[in-house]
Amino acid sequence: VNSIITLTTDFGLSDPYVGIMKGVILGINPGACIVDICHQVEAGSVINGAAMLEEAYGFFPKGTIHVAVIDPGVGGVRRPIVARTRDYFFVGPDNGLFWPIFEKETDVTVIHLTREAYFLPHVSRTFHGRDIFTPVAAHLSLGADLLSMGRTIMDPVVLRMPVAHQEGDVLHGQIIRMDHFGNLITNISEQDLVRFAATGHVTVIVGQMIIKDIKGAYSESAKGEALALMGSSGYLEIAVNQGRAGDLLGADSRRPTGAPVSIRLKAED
Amino acid sequence: VNSIITLTTDFGLSDPYVGIMKGVILGINPGACIVDICHQVEAGSVINGAAMLEEAYGFFPKGTIHVAVIDPGVGGVRRPIVARTRDYFFVGPDNGLFWPIFEKETDVTVIHLTREAYFLPHVSRTFHGRDIFTPVAAHLSLGADLLSMGRTIMDPVVLRMPVAHQEGDVLHGQIIRMDHFGNLITNISEQDLVRFAATGHVTVIVGQMIIKDIKGAYSESAKGEALALMGSSGYLEIAVNQGRAGDLLGADSRRPTGAPVSIRLKAED
Amino acid sequence: VNSIITLTTDFGLSDPYVGIMKGVILGINPGACIVDICHQVEAGSVINGAAMLEEAYGFFPKGTIHVAVIDPGVGGVRRPIVARTRDYFFVGPDNGLFWPIFEKETDVTVIHLTREAYFLPHVSRTFHGRDIFTPVAAHLSLGADLLSMGRTIMDPVVLRMPVAHQEGDVLHGQIIRMDHFGNLITNISEQDLVRFAATGHVTVIVGQMIIKDIKGAYSESAKGEALALMGSSGYLEIAVNQGRAGDLLGADSRRPTGAPVSIRLKAED
Repeated sequence: VNSIITLTTDFGLSDPYVGIMKGVILGINPGACIVDICHQVEAGSVINGAAMLEEAYGFFPKGTIHVAVIDPGVGGVRRPIVARTRDYFFVGPDNGLFWPIFEKETDVTVIHLTREAYFLPHVSRTFHGRDIFTPVAAHLSLGADLLSMGRTIMDPVVLRMPVAHQEGDVLHGQIIRMDHFGNLITNISEQDLVRFAATGHVTVIVGQMIIKDIKGAYSESAKGEALALMGSSGYLEIAVNQGRAGDLLGADSRRPTGAPVSIRLKAED
Repeated sequence: VNSIITLTTDFGLSDPYVGIMKGVILGINPGACIVDICHQVEAGSVINGAAMLEEAYGFFPKGTIHVAVIDPGVGGVRRPIVARTRDYFFVGPDNGLFWPIFEKETDVTVIHLTREAYFLPHVSRTFHGRDIFTPVAAHLSLGADLLSMGRTIMDPVVLRMPVAHQEGDVLHGQIIRMDHFGNLITNISEQDLVRFAATGHVTVIVGQMIIKDIKGAYSESAKGEALALMGSSGYLEIAVNQGRAGDLLGADSRRPTGAPVSIRLKAED
Repeated sequence: VNSIITLTTDFGLSDPYVGIMKGVILGINPGACIVDICHQVEAGSVINGAAMLEEAYGFFPKGTIHVAVIDPGVGGVRRPIVARTRDYFFVGPDNGLFWPIFEKETDVTVIHLTREAYFLPHVSRTFHGRDIFTPVAAHLSLGADLLSMGRTIMDPVVLRMPVAHQEGDVLHGQIIRMDHFGNLITNISEQDLVRFAATGHVTVIVGQMIIKDIKGAYSESAKGEALALMGSSGYLEIAVNQGRAGDLLGADSRRPTGAPVSIRLKAED
């Protein structure tokens, strides 16, 4: 256990909620090192939050405690959980948010949080980030044993992330999110692509864009031209050199998540 | 005194101003722990800033120094102040920003900041957050005595916050702010409501929404349905399960602050 | 060397990229103190980023390591660099981002980063902030010698910032950026102005605004009235008391950067 606690939420930055959670952590462990991963997850989107967390968690040192609160079911029947993998801890709602990580990691222990001694004295039905998840994380950072926090569960909620699949000569994927630069990040991994077309001589079709080949860097295309490349997260990305790929999506520009992407072998191959 | 310093401003996040204030603090006390409460207070809105700070301050450990800079009168006649309550310190302009806290706390000492040794060497007339408030906070965090920073004042500026009031069978309140989720937070406290209708069998009217009863959690209403519940801040809140209550406000959607809320006893009671 | 590392980027706050860079730093130096200067630099605008960094860097304590990543040329031929001035370190792309600081400081050493031992094991072609710049900064904060990181270069990329110039009776400048309050910050420094008109009796013309004299504080003009004053950054600023000067720019309101500002001696002088 180290004392690094990360926060990933859909709370935005225009309210005092994130600051309040930090106050709660420091009230329990004044030596905690708190790091924001992102607070602008799409409101209520467990898939969006899960994807961000999966991209980020492994860059933190061993022992880091990751708190994530995308929690549309707060105050209802969903369980609050804490989990331990080989290198990290995770605290948040049991709604699938951590599922992609649980699937990838070995040695995952998941506990249903029920021991109230680790919560704030008064638990509201609308803000468990403040009342349950951050206090639990702060106690973990002081060395509390997660096995003392509740009973082990074997059935955490499964999150169905859309996966790329091949149909005849075509690899079908979709846009998972658009980033701040307008880059469109797909669910097609490097392995998916290599398995489909080891040569890399493919055509990528997204909206009305028809893109030839996979490039290595933004600057390998002309300014303003669309390109496809393996993004820093390990997934295929559609970008425009010094521009915004999202603007070229046509009808899907405003809600890019879920827009279809298809990859075909190039005819001349 | 601990070394936690919080920042609440209307500076936004697209300029270097907040980063500069952090540099100033660390230049004086490299061991300070700086926490952002919120930097997206509505520009120049002392009421909005005061409400956020009042909601957040008490979640921090004893000895925390709260700096707040919503300061439309900077460079004019308004006084810079530092205050001490039983558990906290406050530094900022004397424009009412801390008034709701002063009213609630006992043992409040307010000092007019005049001792220039605690300021930056050059004090501008446009950025006292950098030149006066954060240097003072950093010196406090090193143990400087606030009584050495200027003279005690007995007349800090009073902020008139709109309060809920009963008129015949109706409890009148208003929307104080809309949060990132589109939830509408009112000025009707749990005590106001209990005093008005101990049973909780009431009808809440906001814009064209007519909402029956007070619920306990977002998930107690159907998806997309408006509900009223006690929010995490201790005030009545209008929300939509997995939606945005602010969008249902009609004419007031764009400027929800100040929109009237009325509560009536249910006829059948 | 202290262990303060600042971050200035155009990554925005809706992706996990900034959080990932912090994880990388803490993985190398868990004791680092990481401070955000700004992550909302205009996407790809080296000039905008350079101006922010120049405004902020000097407020941090000696030994601070400033990382800046506005990097449209990532993955291409531009060099990654680290630099040392008398008091600070700078890490980022060699695209002019640090040029205004190099020009102002004496004793500047610039190194072309080539020693891969200081990078992450796998260096992508799209995210050098994560793979090169933050790991290098973290190693610097642990005391690594920048001379061991690559060879000294004498030809860092020069950034041509637009400068104010006099033409007959008129001083010509331009808007460099609009801040969160709608204030328009120009490239006319206090020295430029004093040299042009020691008396300060001037008329400032921006868009359709004609502003008389230079004021000392926002509150010296009537509410809603435009005024010109020396801003906290040491440059002439156009503001509106309790309003947004940017909204009065007319045709240039949406893209204020680059809009012309001219200053004339007042006829009656």
